[in-house]
Amino acid sequence: MLTYVLDPASRTPLYEQLYRFIRQDISSGVLKGGERLPSNRQLAQHLEVSRITVETAYAQLLAEGYLTSAPRKGYFVQESLAVPPHKPILPRPAPDKPAGQRFLFDFKTNIVDTDCFPFSTWARLSRAVLTDYANRLLLESAPQGEAELREAIRAYLLSFRGIEVSTEQIVVGAGSEYLLHLLIQLLGRERVYALENPGYRKLYQIFEANGAAVRPIALDGKGLRADLLGDASAVYLTPSHHFPTGVVMPVPRRMQLLQWAAEQPGRYLIEDDYDSEFRYSSRPMPALKELDRQERVIYLNTFAKSLAPSLRIGYMVLPAPLLSAYRDRFSLYSASVPAFEQHTLARFMESGAFERHISRSRNVYKGRLEALLTALRESPLAPLTEIHGSEAGLHILMRVKNGLREEDLVRRAAAKGVRVYGLSAYYAPGSRPEKATLILGYAGIDSDRFQEAVALLCEAWL
Amino acid sequence: MLTYVLDPASRTPLYEQLYRFIRQDISSGVLKGGERLPSNRQLAQHLEVSRITVETAYAQLLAEGYLTSAPRKGYFVQESLAVPPHKPILPRPAPDKPAGQRFLFDFKTNIVDTDCFPFSTWARLSRAVLTDYANRLLLESAPQGEAELREAIRAYLLSFRGIEVSTEQIVVGAGSEYLLHLLIQLLGRERVYALENPGYRKLYQIFEANGAAVRPIALDGKGLRADLLGDASAVYLTPSHHFPTGVVMPVPRRMQLLQWAAEQPGRYLIEDDYDSEFRYSSRPMPALKELDRQERVIYLNTFAKSLAPSLRIGYMVLPAPLLSAYRDRFSLYSASVPAFEQHTLARFMESGAFERHISRSRNVYKGRLEALLTALRESPLAPLTEIHGSEAGLHILMRVKNGLREEDLVRRAAAKGVRVYGLSAYYAPGSRPEKATLILGYAGIDSDRFQEAVALLCEAWL
Repeated sequence: MLTYVLDPASRTPLYEQLYRFIRQDISSGVLKGGERLPSNRQLAQHLEVSRITVETAYAQLLAEGYLTSAPRKGYFVQESLAVPPHKPILPRPAPDKPAGQRFLFDFKTNIVDTDCFPFSTWARLSRAVLTDYANRLLLESAPQGEAELREAIRAYLLSFRGIEVSTEQIVVGAGSEYLLHLLIQLLGRERVYALENPGYRKLYQIFEANGAAVRPIALDGKGLRADLLGDASAVYLTPSHHFPTGVVMPVPRRMQLLQWAAEQPGRYLIEDDYDSEFRYSSRPMPALKELDRQERVIYLNTFAKSLAPSLRIGYMVLPAPLLSAYRDRFSLYSASVPAFEQHTLARFMESGAFERHISRSRNVYKGRLEALLTALRESPLAPLTEIHGSEAGLHILMRVKNGLREEDLVRRAAAKGVRVYGLSAYYAPGSRPEKATLILGYAGIDSDRFQEAVALLCEAWL
Repeated sequence: MLTYVLDPASRTPLYEQLYRFIRQDISSGVLKGGERLPSNRQLAQHLEVSRITVETAYAQLLAEGYLTSAPRKGYFVQESLAVPPHKPILPRPAPDKPAGQRFLFDFKTNIVDTDCFPFSTWARLSRAVLTDYANRLLLESAPQGEAELREAIRAYLLSFRGIEVSTEQIVVGAGSEYLLHLLIQLLGRERVYALENPGYRKLYQIFEANGAAVRPIALDGKGLRADLLGDASAVYLTPSHHFPTGVVMPVPRRMQLLQWAAEQPGRYLIEDDYDSEFRYSSRPMPALKELDRQERVIYLNTFAKSLAPSLRIGYMVLPAPLLSAYRDRFSLYSASVPAFEQHTLARFMESGAFERHISRSRNVYKGRLEALLTALRESPLAPLTEIHGSEAGLHILMRVKNGLREEDLVRRAAAKGVRVYGLSAYYAPGSRPEKATLILGYAGIDSDRFQEAVALLCEAWL
């Protein structure tokens, strides 16, 4: 007879304790397939519990298929149910960050100084949104994004980028990566996508994971060349400020690309305008989208750089022909950004706080850039270095002409506690820059510390 | 000579006004390619502005490639730059919702009663998170999700679903759709995915958009059959409460599927446990994941049903072998849910508010279900209807045996102001239910109104 010790004082009901014991015995093979169980009455007497307790436990086991029953014969263990005992395969822990080395300075590029962000304003607007919308925030949000946010983006694009679009064309999504997944689905994975080389490293991963073929295109001093596009029918590019070289694509080159796109149906240019906000020397370069008369440019931008990486809000502007296809095929997709963040961001933009934030952080970053350039200019490194791409963005390119290879420059700097990054990591596999070049992101380092950092680089390289 | 009227009183600097006029004239073809522009001095005199104004405008146009310059010859309009005047192609507006018909009752399934949600608790926790984390909320969040939220999910899975996993295995993402995109990338689009038929309609769209082949599998009374899987090597299923039929898969069938998965390397079961929280009659059916000894089950769940659709937070639990692949291939992907929501949800779960909410809404929904069942039982429809799937979830299935076809049932109900949904919409193209069956979602209708709704259905169908 089954003998289990049930605990009447437990928070778990007796029937459930009994259910668990029997299930455990079936799973472990103590109770064999086909074996007959004692009747309700017998087991209730034996365990000194009520019949209803046993009945409930049996009923649950029956419902779940652990037992079978036959009229007037009783309950039987289901055949072939022994489950090997659970030895969970514990996943190996996430690989540690390369253990140990602490850097005094880290010239990483994908950093935003969160101290620049007007968090108290953001928190105030957040609280107001919680109060004003209350549980309307819980309703399913508009798949392309909340109307208020799309209107704020429309107004922003018009006044700051000179791009005239309708809110209907704007799709808000959880960051550029997510939007690229959508775009690849929309444009199709049969086509070949041209990517700038060098360019974002993540792009290769994203396109590959989506099963789309990519063709890296080498750049000249004006950016990507339309005559090298070969069999590609879509191009991803950063014309206003190429990442990472900082090249600004001149208008004639832009016109050539637009011309290329117009030549055949289905060709598209994907313009990533990722850091158009941070341009120092003159007015921002117009967007390619502004010149788009044939509806061939998909405009993509994100608030990860201009606000904060953790906000995960990006948007794209679809040309009219793609918009119909988007609606036809993805109408069932849900919004990917919580309504709360969308409303807070909309108010942040409407209230002018976004514009003030951009202008303030532009000044902060410009100050850092100047401090870095001054420190370099006044150091013994000056004659051996050449700076590019300092007109915009949050990093510069530095060629170092002391005969050392890129990897040696990086290694020697690291030995002095300064982390710098080689340009070759931004190249497609199998290609690399002609000359040893480093990328220095300066957004995360205070202005008064660059002299010290540059002094360490001198020690490392001279 | 170029003649423009510049406005010294404007907020736009004079040089920029001039820049815009010239650019406009180049774009529209008024200034032809190759045409020579007046010198700085000439134009400054002519327009009565300073030479620096003209110089700055020219420099900008030169930088952007609208002009070229030749030493001692002056500035020339770039060749072939005329851009056709901008006639924006306005997208057709989003198709209106089928205009007009207002329903007195709508038995839709994808609805959550947001009145059940403890919004004031949520708002309080949100405010606390804003205060406590402050601008740490802006930092890039952990790609797999914030540690606090993954820990809360781990504890929840253990105590409410009996599933023992490590936080390392949990991936938080912007809703089940997004997680499915990731999963298809992870498992590959070369394989055939088996889907339950009937099942979620969105699934076909998602798999198709991702370029993965699907095979709809007909169900019997116990759910999906392992012996019908054919060349499929991954199965998406809802074993604890099949959507939409409500079938609960018994343990022997589950064991067969686990057995099938273990037979060949690379086979996986994707368990969508979407509404396991809402089970009324007995303890929740154990998850398939709980029986998974060979690490073949990917567990997927969302807070869209249990909390609110707009939160867009879901998660998946990856078995150990897939976790390594996930890290190798997607380590660069960013988190897709804002840190703020993640922390608020983590506190909501830790504080017990989630459990209380589930238990309270289960009671509310159970009350509605009983009111609906009572109204049906006491109505003249009773002998002509058969109810299925009422043990769990937020909808029931109703077979109507009055000889009318499904579409006629739907149409006639609509004529009386009651919106009901046919089961056939949940079938794969080319298949449909044998008998006229409707899906009635009851979560959005107050208990005291079902009598009226059922009376209207009687008028419509009898």
